[in-house]
Amino acid sequence: MSIIQPSPISGFPEFLPAEQIVFNRALHLIRENFELFGFSPIETPAVERVDILTAKGGVDSKEIYTLHRLAAEEGEESDTGLALHFDVTVPLARYVAHHHGKLIFPFRRYQIQPVWRGERPQAGRYRQFYQCDFDVIGDGEISLQHDAEMPAIMYHIFKKMQIGSFTIRINNRKILCGYLESLGIGTQDLVEEATRIVDAMLKVGTDRTLAALEKIGLDSDKAVSMMIFFRQELDSDAWIAHLKDMSVGDTFDEGVCELEEVVRSVRAMGVPEDCFCVDPSLARGLGYYTGTIYEARLNDNPGIGSICGGGRFDNLASNYTTKKLPGVGASIGLTRLIPRLIEKEIMKVGAATAAPVLITSMDQGKLGEYLHFGTTLRDAGIKTEVFLEPKKFNVQMKYANRKGFTVVIIAGDEEFASSSVVVKNLQTGQQETVTIDKMVGIVQCYLNSIH
Amino acid sequence: MSIIQPSPISGFPEFLPAEQIVFNRALHLIRENFELFGFSPIETPAVERVDILTAKGGVDSKEIYTLHRLAAEEGEESDTGLALHFDVTVPLARYVAHHHGKLIFPFRRYQIQPVWRGERPQAGRYRQFYQCDFDVIGDGEISLQHDAEMPAIMYHIFKKMQIGSFTIRINNRKILCGYLESLGIGTQDLVEEATRIVDAMLKVGTDRTLAALEKIGLDSDKAVSMMIFFRQELDSDAWIAHLKDMSVGDTFDEGVCELEEVVRSVRAMGVPEDCFCVDPSLARGLGYYTGTIYEARLNDNPGIGSICGGGRFDNLASNYTTKKLPGVGASIGLTRLIPRLIEKEIMKVGAATAAPVLITSMDQGKLGEYLHFGTTLRDAGIKTEVFLEPKKFNVQMKYANRKGFTVVIIAGDEEFASSSVVVKNLQTGQQETVTIDKMVGIVQCYLNSIH
Repeated sequence: MSIIQPSPISGFPEFLPAEQIVFNRALHLIRENFELFGFSPIETPAVERVDILTAKGGVDSKEIYTLHRLAAEEGEESDTGLALHFDVTVPLARYVAHHHGKLIFPFRRYQIQPVWRGERPQAGRYRQFYQCDFDVIGDGEISLQHDAEMPAIMYHIFKKMQIGSFTIRINNRKILCGYLESLGIGTQDLVEEATRIVDAMLKVGTDRTLAALEKIGLDSDKAVSMMIFFRQELDSDAWIAHLKDMSVGDTFDEGVCELEEVVRSVRAMGVPEDCFCVDPSLARGLGYYTGTIYEARLNDNPGIGSICGGGRFDNLASNYTTKKLPGVGASIGLTRLIPRLIEKEIMKVGAATAAPVLITSMDQGKLGEYLHFGTTLRDAGIKTEVFLEPKKFNVQMKYANRKGFTVVIIAGDEEFASSSVVVKNLQTGQQETVTIDKMVGIVQCYLNSIH
Repeated sequence: MSIIQPSPISGFPEFLPAEQIVFNRALHLIRENFELFGFSPIETPAVERVDILTAKGGVDSKEIYTLHRLAAEEGEESDTGLALHFDVTVPLARYVAHHHGKLIFPFRRYQIQPVWRGERPQAGRYRQFYQCDFDVIGDGEISLQHDAEMPAIMYHIFKKMQIGSFTIRINNRKILCGYLESLGIGTQDLVEEATRIVDAMLKVGTDRTLAALEKIGLDSDKAVSMMIFFRQELDSDAWIAHLKDMSVGDTFDEGVCELEEVVRSVRAMGVPEDCFCVDPSLARGLGYYTGTIYEARLNDNPGIGSICGGGRFDNLASNYTTKKLPGVGASIGLTRLIPRLIEKEIMKVGAATAAPVLITSMDQGKLGEYLHFGTTLRDAGIKTEVFLEPKKFNVQMKYANRKGFTVVIIAGDEEFASSSVVVKNLQTGQQETVTIDKMVGIVQCYLNSIH
């Protein structure tokens, strides 16, 4: 038979088991924390109708993967009219519009699924990647308190992930736009252009920033005051006080007022001062968000980029329903994040097994006993593998070490004669011979000493 | 703006939150039990190269969804040469062939992912559905003990799912084929035809079965003895004794010998007698499996069909590598199973929230306190939502009842004056006013009394 060479497909990542275990642990932690805050899971199909996906516009159709049939039925089109979703926001909008009468509002949902984008692959860019989204959708209206809940959830997740200190930057789009408007920058295109220039300010330096701002039509006085405004280093309260003093227009003032309330509630939700800050230069999804916006980064590894971002939007599903559905939410791009955390050694790749215990089978005639040890440990909730191949003991121990088991159970003639087993901690080398009734206890003790 | 009507896409199921919670609970239980037996997670991309997917043949190309770009770059094909996987067996084969040098054998992996098939939709048939697969792959060889482990895992999962009594039927393809061969049924097509006829025997009755068997070339003596053979009702040990007595050829005898060893180890792994049986009429995936085969069904709801099936195969990845990779595994089709269990009321759909506790906010001026209650409960690991909208108390209680919370926390002037809260059990109506330091304890007590 001719062999077809398997090869990786560019942009479609795939992990070995040890990495997958790290990835799944993070997924589980995120899921648990979404639920800790009372978010309910939903999952939408991987595909949507093409007209649903492209309703909003602004999507690059080169990036949308449509579905065809490899072979069509006679007289049928191979084109299905379906395409893989490129985010879970459009599917959420369609879901809420479709199931509106059956949902309970405010609708608090999380959604953890792969999404697909036909981007040109490059380092850190994927064509398939997980989005971990959490949003609260209101029916007609939704309180600002929900805006404050988002940073609290991010704080819980990243603290428990133990990936070092991080800062959740908070801004309000109304402040940013109101301020730029006051300088005569009114159209969305110009606002985006201006914020991009400000964003790059620290990298490219003062002169080039000034030149760029003048190029989009700002006179040099305004360009200078804009640079000074955004470069101020103030703490959250000082920023709020300063913004209140400025009062450059109604939109701006409304934004400041909202920001102040959000910051007050972020504190009430127990987010420590050193984990968040007000940052009027933060600009995110300007075409989409309408109020509060967030972005979290690692303090010691800013190069990893945004680890979570989101914001408030006025109307989720205007393409699919006449109902007004405002909301606020955020998203963690885990497929991009985990490999970077591993690369920077912020997360460690450990064992290639989710089970910490291996029962070796030195004597094939005693397999029934080894299997019984396995049942005993599993009944105590301890994840356990029994080595089932008729291999030499040293091969089994090599397997145990390569795969990264924490504890191995060993029993030969001597142990069976005394109804005992050897419990060996592979990480410390420590081992004890105990009677079988003590096996569970000593294994648990070894496992607890590690975690 | 014109509205695009969202509508469900036939064959692509989507749950409301309460159903999704039931589905996710089952997924979690399955995942935990795979890991309890030392299976490691992997996940392959949703897509494979078309030539990889079609290498084996026997796949209906109408059922394969290929990926095109909605708009192609200039001078580029819109066809990507990629297609959505239709199972996770082909991806496993490709994965093991590709990563062979980095994997540790026996390679014990589980894989829980959606798969896609462009079938004509009909009741209970889906175009996207979850497969929960677990397999052990050997490098060159793999012990029969692994065949015995599969029923033990199925037993653990279905017992813990609490979906009623079930039977795991076990057979060995060599017995089936050896027996049919002894009657002159040698080719794979005839074997499949004959087993299909035997399968339908109980439904269509004796006369039609005889006629069908004669039609495929069996003389009536042989047809009768075949029907008698398969219709015997024996327990597992009696079947094995009977099969040993028969000894109709080498293949047959080898199958009987393997079956006996598997049954012995299934018992050693603690699977109770009433949960499994030997059934020589069981025929599953004849083109794929080469030894042990399994299928589990619910005793009181046989109409639900197979809830788990699998078997042993000689060579996993012969299309992608010259290495011999035998294995054994099984699969649970959860997307099909859960809705049927719900429909038959074997599984109950409960709350639309994963959090059992709601903190109501009677007095918007005290929001800081309510948020603090939330933090206190969450710090104790209790999944909790705080009601954040400025709505009347009765609206909040309606929300709590509709969404299915188990416990609500209530605090107004009176409670704040005495540093206490009302903890109300919505399922029993029971409520107590306790000081704030006792809140966690009483909530835990209410929650424990339910589960």
